[in-house]
Amino acid sequence: MGRVTTRVRRTRFDVATGARVERPDTVAVEEPLEIRLGEEPLTTTMRTPGDDFDLAIGHLLTEGLLHGADEVARLMHCTDVDADGSPTYNVVEVTLAPGVVLHRPARERTEAMTSACGVCGSATVEAVRTTSRYAVARDPLALTADVVAGLPESLGARQPAFERTGGLHAAGLATASGDLLLVREDVGRHNAVDKAVGAAARERALPLAGMVLVVSARASFEIVQKASVAGIPAVVAVGAPTSLAVDLAQECGITLVAFTRSPRFSVYARPDRVTS
Amino acid sequence: MGRVTTRVRRTRFDVATGARVERPDTVAVEEPLEIRLGEEPLTTTMRTPGDDFDLAIGHLLTEGLLHGADEVARLMHCTDVDADGSPTYNVVEVTLAPGVVLHRPARERTEAMTSACGVCGSATVEAVRTTSRYAVARDPLALTADVVAGLPESLGARQPAFERTGGLHAAGLATASGDLLLVREDVGRHNAVDKAVGAAARERALPLAGMVLVVSARASFEIVQKASVAGIPAVVAVGAPTSLAVDLAQECGITLVAFTRSPRFSVYARPDRVTS
Repeated sequence: MGRVTTRVRRTRFDVATGARVERPDTVAVEEPLEIRLGEEPLTTTMRTPGDDFDLAIGHLLTEGLLHGADEVARLMHCTDVDADGSPTYNVVEVTLAPGVVLHRPARERTEAMTSACGVCGSATVEAVRTTSRYAVARDPLALTADVVAGLPESLGARQPAFERTGGLHAAGLATASGDLLLVREDVGRHNAVDKAVGAAARERALPLAGMVLVVSARASFEIVQKASVAGIPAVVAVGAPTSLAVDLAQECGITLVAFTRSPRFSVYARPDRVTS
Repeated sequence: MGRVTTRVRRTRFDVATGARVERPDTVAVEEPLEIRLGEEPLTTTMRTPGDDFDLAIGHLLTEGLLHGADEVARLMHCTDVDADGSPTYNVVEVTLAPGVVLHRPARERTEAMTSACGVCGSATVEAVRTTSRYAVARDPLALTADVVAGLPESLGARQPAFERTGGLHAAGLATASGDLLLVREDVGRHNAVDKAVGAAARERALPLAGMVLVVSARASFEIVQKASVAGIPAVVAVGAPTSLAVDLAQECGITLVAFTRSPRFSVYARPDRVTS
């Protein structure tokens, strides 16, 4: 289990030289993971195998379905096999602790929108948003510009074998002094964040007060939302932010850094936490 | 409606010079779009406003729920307003033509997986896959290496105002001679493809035999699947391919090109369609 990369054949063309060479290449593995609650399928996500329990817990938490890893009694891979008889590990079954029920219906996001034709500005953000239980706006986190600028390089240094596929996103949790406590990778950028949050939750580390979520990709609404739900007061992205990510970060009081390419970066919300 | 970019304030840091400057910036707009079938919500996607009818039709087609734009009688934006009384255009209502029903349940992907614990190898690909009605493997498309290498630049040239946000993906449909017939943009790479396929479908151009789908991002399973369902025999991606994208392209007979950065590119499936 947990094959993160695999070998494939490719034909490489170079129009400058006219070369056409067949050679092996390494690509990121993408396989479906079905997450079940008891015997009922909850969701299927295309992910990179590995850290599946982190992903399952992280998904349940950042979607607001559960509040902590202690609400889960057991996580197990179903022991299904493929056509060759090899185990596939593509189903994770989550058993809730006795007496625990989901904190909202798994489909609430859709259902909440049936009541009116209005999906608009602030109402929309409310409707698609999983409310955080943590007051991230009041987190006293303080970051220096040097630490912020160095985070993407630290993240990259923790992706030694996989960077060469060019197809894996990474998410990490860092301290205010720039130490990366954990890093998770996935073909999906949401999954990478869910894996990082889930790994921390399984260590009973939520809320992640005083921490920084570092992502190798862009900062969209959902990335900021996941930070908010996990109690993380700052997001540092290598890529661009979206409008709704900026809106949500400002509203929640999350420091949102994007285009982090040393020596420069830009802060789109709560720049007061960053000192030059 | 259709705001693709918006202005926000940001604080730009440069640790090399110690500069800290507050200035405006342009970011990609991200807002939710709810797609309804009649009055029933089908899905909500985070997208860039604009080309919403293309997106709605494209989503229904590439998910295998409908087979053609002629199965839709009417598309309309709900006339909801935000707190300031401005229309938001964040709900599209799809009315099916008389007698038309969805070709599979909207939730089939999940339901199909309840029957067994097995989500594995080829069975998985089957389960998460929307079967194409078109024989793309037999498409006689022939491409020269020069045309392939030039496609990303052509795509970039059609994103004049938006490239500067760094946050928008693009998808285009090109002929075998490299002419880009249409381009669509979105914060989501799946949405960009759905918009392009939906736009073509509304012109009654499906199946897109002999065409090339060009994407600014990576080639994942779902991108290849959308090409397959739309009858497109070739996908050219700027970014990396995933393992399952390669598997599906090989199985469907779709030419899959990735890492397309002139003068070089790599072909991961059906290289026979490309001549040096």
